[in-house]
Amino acid sequence: MKTTNFHLGTQPLEHDQQKRLDDFFLQLQDEADHFLGYPCTREFDYRPLYPFLSMPLNNVGDPFIDSRYHLNTHQYEREVIAFFAALLKAKEDKTWGYITNGGTEGNMYGIYLAREIFPDGLLYYSEATHYSVPKILRMVHARNIMIKSQPNGEIDYQDLAETLRIHRDIPAIIFANIGTTMTGAVDNLDKIKQIMEDLAITQHYIHCDAALSGMILPFVDHPQPFDFSAGIDSISISGHKLIGSPIPCGLALAKKTHVDRIARAVEYISTFDTTISGSRNGITPLFLWYAIHCKGKAGFKKICQHCITIADYAIARFEDHGINAWRNPNSITVVFPRQAEEVLTRWQIATQKEIAHIITMPHVTTSHIDRFIADISNAHTREVA
Amino acid sequence: MKTTNFHLGTQPLEHDQQKRLDDFFLQLQDEADHFLGYPCTREFDYRPLYPFLSMPLNNVGDPFIDSRYHLNTHQYEREVIAFFAALLKAKEDKTWGYITNGGTEGNMYGIYLAREIFPDGLLYYSEATHYSVPKILRMVHARNIMIKSQPNGEIDYQDLAETLRIHRDIPAIIFANIGTTMTGAVDNLDKIKQIMEDLAITQHYIHCDAALSGMILPFVDHPQPFDFSAGIDSISISGHKLIGSPIPCGLALAKKTHVDRIARAVEYISTFDTTISGSRNGITPLFLWYAIHCKGKAGFKKICQHCITIADYAIARFEDHGINAWRNPNSITVVFPRQAEEVLTRWQIATQKEIAHIITMPHVTTSHIDRFIADISNAHTREVA
Repeated sequence: MKTTNFHLGTQPLEHDQQKRLDDFFLQLQDEADHFLGYPCTREFDYRPLYPFLSMPLNNVGDPFIDSRYHLNTHQYEREVIAFFAALLKAKEDKTWGYITNGGTEGNMYGIYLAREIFPDGLLYYSEATHYSVPKILRMVHARNIMIKSQPNGEIDYQDLAETLRIHRDIPAIIFANIGTTMTGAVDNLDKIKQIMEDLAITQHYIHCDAALSGMILPFVDHPQPFDFSAGIDSISISGHKLIGSPIPCGLALAKKTHVDRIARAVEYISTFDTTISGSRNGITPLFLWYAIHCKGKAGFKKICQHCITIADYAIARFEDHGINAWRNPNSITVVFPRQAEEVLTRWQIATQKEIAHIITMPHVTTSHIDRFIADISNAHTREVA
Repeated sequence: MKTTNFHLGTQPLEHDQQKRLDDFFLQLQDEADHFLGYPCTREFDYRPLYPFLSMPLNNVGDPFIDSRYHLNTHQYEREVIAFFAALLKAKEDKTWGYITNGGTEGNMYGIYLAREIFPDGLLYYSEATHYSVPKILRMVHARNIMIKSQPNGEIDYQDLAETLRIHRDIPAIIFANIGTTMTGAVDNLDKIKQIMEDLAITQHYIHCDAALSGMILPFVDHPQPFDFSAGIDSISISGHKLIGSPIPCGLALAKKTHVDRIARAVEYISTFDTTISGSRNGITPLFLWYAIHCKGKAGFKKICQHCITIADYAIARFEDHGINAWRNPNSITVVFPRQAEEVLTRWQIATQKEIAHIITMPHVTTSHIDRFIADISNAHTREVA
């Protein structure tokens, strides 16, 4: 199927540049073996799908509307969305969604929907919220108030209640963290809904940032409320975090009634395109579809159990070394006091003020934990010496 | 380097699903051989880079700021940005940029910058502008006025001048099309600047949507003005269009002074992240870097010449068949009257009212053109019979 002009204007890479690339690959492989601080798994293998990378795939437009651009994977995207809709207990045919370029786009989508539905609404989010959220709020001009967080990372319900009380006349948009970035804390939706009910705030919208925990909570025995059965309006989940992908991706899901409202507004400007991006990635829907089929719910359950076991193993080892470490319920984010800079850099650990964390993603083994804690211990010894 | 838990919870794909995927691949290959209507090339081969897809690459954050997430390709991203900055005659060290998920994100970035610099500014764009732009304008709450287009797709300068005159007291944000989607028309920046000068509008910002033509104009003998030497403030160029990529991507470039202003605003909300996305694609910067090195300016020049030759070949063949076809200067978009639906669908041709177009991207050969025109001719014969 090769056309005659395939190598038009193309030369092989120069030797020096090829060498540089090869060295870079080895360096990345070494770094990948010290990858404890971010919520992205290394456990994926999409080699059987690489042939699809020979084509300019593009899922431009709404995944549920046929496109003249035939080199798309819309059918697989729709199946991934259906899998997640069922997983998140959405009512059948009542949920719309698409595969995004990552959690930020899913959050942007939820905030955009909420702002369109309540143009004068006030958005409430905790100070433990990911830094990309205030960036989005500024970008889309959404009125907002930051609420205090509790030490474990959950929103401060008293501050939320008092703030909501002051603004009872304004529709409330709740940006809930289902697993905060730093401590994996889950905002309690039952409490938040109760607060709004007590204040008779009936006009409200709940968006969940469930980047990582959205793929953990469906697979544990006692999940916190977080899905459509808990009354949410939209949710963003990352695909490259627990499922795994070499390319950032995610899911945006929302109640169809909300999206239809936007679609009508968008139709007015002569397009049915209800997604944020124009050209959209066609390979990541295939990756996610493949992962879902190769792992299934049983596989993801096994993976989540493994991650929690390793998290508890890490906490125990920290304790053995006299370091206080902890995690939130159903979280695989292990929080501990900030350590020596060299260790943090070596193991790619994010910090916030005096705390640090590791995240026991599927690729993390007891051996990684042992080596990491040995490094901390050695750094302590050197400091004391 | 494999960890012991690599296949945790993973099964091979079921036979039926594998068969379905194989059939889908063959179907896409067939579709790819009838791919004339979209500005995306099929001419790329990134197989040497596939090993990098075994890792969770993520270019999170500003490409010029070191990240604790070491599995990034920031260094290659910076080199791609430097290549484009030079190509677009940006003053050295005066331009900032990053690799986006496609043209839409680059346009969103430019519009966001402009709105931050002139919060009360009015954005002017022609009716031939891509449908994603009004979507963005709605999303970021940017005041805007749509200006009429001329039949060739260029903005109507008289309408622009009259509209600007009415709003002389308001900073002007010009959203210029450097190659419209439908007819490849280039808005004349010299004329637009002259209009603003005549009206003494000194507070202005020019963003260029140069999705496709941004990679053509640097390689032709008589380019229309469109780059930083023409006084623009920001520009968006697609990576998956003329360069080619299986994953949508693009470049956002802007004057550093503008971005620094945003960065300060963003710093206030505790982050130095000046990009739109959080997690960012790490493989597309490698793809673009690789293409730049394997093709170089000489290669791109050869490719652009080939595309223009094929466009002229198509126009001549249309004329042979009594069909009036045309193209704008330096454009590879060949415009002709709308044809039979079956032909449009088969060759994936986008239409707008009574016109249709093919785009002679690098993969298009004379044989494609001949087969396409034969199909049109046969459809005509059937209609007449």
